[in-house]
Amino acid sequence: MSRRVSIEPLTVEAFAPYGDVLDARGEADKIINAGQCGRYHDRATIDVSEQTGGRVGISIFHATLRALPYTLDLIERHPEGSQAFIPMSADPFLVIVADAPDATPKAFVTNGAQGINFHRGTWHGVLTPLAGNGLFAVVDRIGETPNLEEHVFDAPWIIS
Amino acid sequence: MSRRVSIEPLTVEAFAPYGDVLDARGEADKIINAGQCGRYHDRATIDVSEQTGGRVGISIFHATLRALPYTLDLIERHPEGSQAFIPMSADPFLVIVADAPDATPKAFVTNGAQGINFHRGTWHGVLTPLAGNGLFAVVDRIGETPNLEEHVFDAPWIIS
Repeated sequence: MSRRVSIEPLTVEAFAPYGDVLDARGEADKIINAGQCGRYHDRATIDVSEQTGGRVGISIFHATLRALPYTLDLIERHPEGSQAFIPMSADPFLVIVADAPDATPKAFVTNGAQGINFHRGTWHGVLTPLAGNGLFAVVDRIGETPNLEEHVFDAPWIIS
Repeated sequence: MSRRVSIEPLTVEAFAPYGDVLDARGEADKIINAGQCGRYHDRATIDVSEQTGGRVGISIFHATLRALPYTLDLIERHPEGSQAFIPMSADPFLVIVADAPDATPKAFVTNGAQGINFHRGTWHGVLTPLAGNGLFAVVDRIGETPNLEEHVFDAPWIIS
């Protein structure tokens, strides 16, 4: 079996099983500020467990830039909450997801004007910016209890 | 009385009465992803009223770029919740705040790698990007009840 995965553009339709695309597509839901700003309203399904003492918070991630082909060694998921990644530079990043640890991963690339929100429990690769400053705002669960499962592949996948 | 306000760099100290600076300053709170990513943890004081049926959400704002000097006609505030603005391009934007409608406003400019989170109820100017794509992720209260107060100045302030 080939261990290669081809990258496809990130679209709402293709990504729907895994999460939300956070962007300014379509018509604005509301025009505010005397016509100077469009609000694209409520684009993320935030789903954070409060039963385990969690709450929603904003953190900043600073990630190393990656090059293609990218070697995917592991995927992870967060059983206690959704996780949004908003790029702080107008540059593409890779978004890797999988239906299950033994499924073939899927790889998407953003268009430089998209963030994403992984649904709670979605298997995904780590943060992989391809250009820019590597800064992301992350909206996820803040809490003291464990919220990470990892799966290391027997052999890595090559993403290109 | 002069109606001119000088712009100063956005710093954590100067902005503290009004909100949080969302950036990757200092040492990361946690290094994740096998050393490839620093997490600057829980940087925003999210404060969203749930008593009026609200919840936290993520929206995308697309704002017109502004030029200096900027004419400040009005300020606004949101009594029901904090509001975070995360730039989706690595460019500066103006952050204007006021202690009260009749106080002299303060104007800050970001360094291109900073977002901000206004504390609940803080008087502030509308979104004023100075460069870039004008896209921002906004983390604020989603709800059906009113959450906006505006104050129009008798005479505008000139921000430069």
